[in-house]
Amino acid sequence: MFSVVLEIKALLQWHKICLSWDATSISLSAACDLFMRFVTRTSHLEHEKFDAAKSRLIERGEKFGEISLKARKTIAMLSQDFISDGCTMLVHGYSRVVLEILKLAASNRKLFRVLCTEGRPDRTGLRMSNELAALGIPVKVLIDSAVAYSMDEVDMVFVGADGVVESGGVINMMGTYQIALVAHSMNKPLYVAAESYKFARLYPLDQKDMTPAHRPINFGVPIPAGVEVETSARDYTPPQYLTLLLTDLGVLTPSVVSDELIQLYL
Amino acid sequence: MFSVVLEIKALLQWHKICLSWDATSISLSAACDLFMRFVTRTSHLEHEKFDAAKSRLIERGEKFGEISLKARKTIAMLSQDFISDGCTMLVHGYSRVVLEILKLAASNRKLFRVLCTEGRPDRTGLRMSNELAALGIPVKVLIDSAVAYSMDEVDMVFVGADGVVESGGVINMMGTYQIALVAHSMNKPLYVAAESYKFARLYPLDQKDMTPAHRPINFGVPIPAGVEVETSARDYTPPQYLTLLLTDLGVLTPSVVSDELIQLYL
Repeated sequence: MFSVVLEIKALLQWHKICLSWDATSISLSAACDLFMRFVTRTSHLEHEKFDAAKSRLIERGEKFGEISLKARKTIAMLSQDFISDGCTMLVHGYSRVVLEILKLAASNRKLFRVLCTEGRPDRTGLRMSNELAALGIPVKVLIDSAVAYSMDEVDMVFVGADGVVESGGVINMMGTYQIALVAHSMNKPLYVAAESYKFARLYPLDQKDMTPAHRPINFGVPIPAGVEVETSARDYTPPQYLTLLLTDLGVLTPSVVSDELIQLYL
Repeated sequence: MFSVVLEIKALLQWHKICLSWDATSISLSAACDLFMRFVTRTSHLEHEKFDAAKSRLIERGEKFGEISLKARKTIAMLSQDFISDGCTMLVHGYSRVVLEILKLAASNRKLFRVLCTEGRPDRTGLRMSNELAALGIPVKVLIDSAVAYSMDEVDMVFVGADGVVESGGVINMMGTYQIALVAHSMNKPLYVAAESYKFARLYPLDQKDMTPAHRPINFGVPIPAGVEVETSARDYTPPQYLTLLLTDLGVLTPSVVSDELIQLYL
């Protein structure tokens, strides 16, 4: 009994430490919530012996880890149907799952071209473009302002997500909302690639309806004292601007996300 | 006669030199075209003595200069009706005429707030924000990606123009089109402030239908050889995304621009 209590205490501690790293990381808090839910939802836990219960908890924990690790591979596989030869896609920021999708497409010998936004202030788009270029994929970098200018060349937009919320919308790196609006007004599909552990029980009503995650912004020159700076790191893209969500639970329309969330947290 | 010929030759030379500075500067080439038109459109020039014709040309040239100089003041005056107390406006890049409008509003003791985009790659928005802060106007700087995120706070958008084209649309700094799309989809008015010497006889059909003006982009880190960079400096905003054009010819709807252009070049 003592060891199980210790184990659970350690688990809770880990959960807490994770959250204190970055209290506003939606994917992290969603994954922690899901993990706790996943390892404890065996209804017969109270009737089992402590050792049996403990090994059951550990087994389920390992299973959760496996599912999460496999998620990106599953998404990459499911996404291949959306990439046709000769297409041009726009990506925003650095997303490991989007990179996995493009890697798999390249290894399947598909011919395509990628436009990467710069991704100010962290220049995450440059990191993405470097990795794509290293894979031999033709890639072009745009400043964040040039999305609408380039949208007529684009066949589809791929973005990752920090979190998928109950409305079916996504929380992601600043600029995603803007790109989604531009894509929507030019009738270009926008696909969000997100592992299901990023599904969060949140329902933001507008852009400012969340604890903002802040990020320092270096403008390269000093900003005078009288000038305020907007440092929010993420924005919220409402579901009506998303075409499909590519997840390890399958390819979902934004309206199905609530149902999947209920299933996940059951 | 000799001196008139010399004068005209000098005029043409000046016109040519101006254009060779930056062959893609739309406002410059439009202004040169208009200037040539303005100084020579006196129908009786051929019946006059050379001295009379010469002084007439000079007089008209000076008049053109005066009109151009007064344009910004006129626009600033006309624009005051659009600025109400307590409003928040978004501006993109550095525009002398937009600055003039905001200066006049501040000196009229209007209370308002300005959001400035960063304006990559030249950081022209920072220059704008510094000048506004020096005037005591509350100002906030956003990265270019944060336009949609902040649009719900905004009551109106003010932009300048490099050129106003025959469709009633405008050619302006990269990012204007994107901001116009975002403003349009959220039903926020977008006003373009432009002196009439920027009216150009061009009819672009899409973003790429113009000789692009290029600008070097410094990403702060070296770009690998395999990565292409989009360096176009301007985009084209079609007329359906503009609310009104604030010009020294009056406040115009985009559809009236063609008529005004015909008048100008008559």
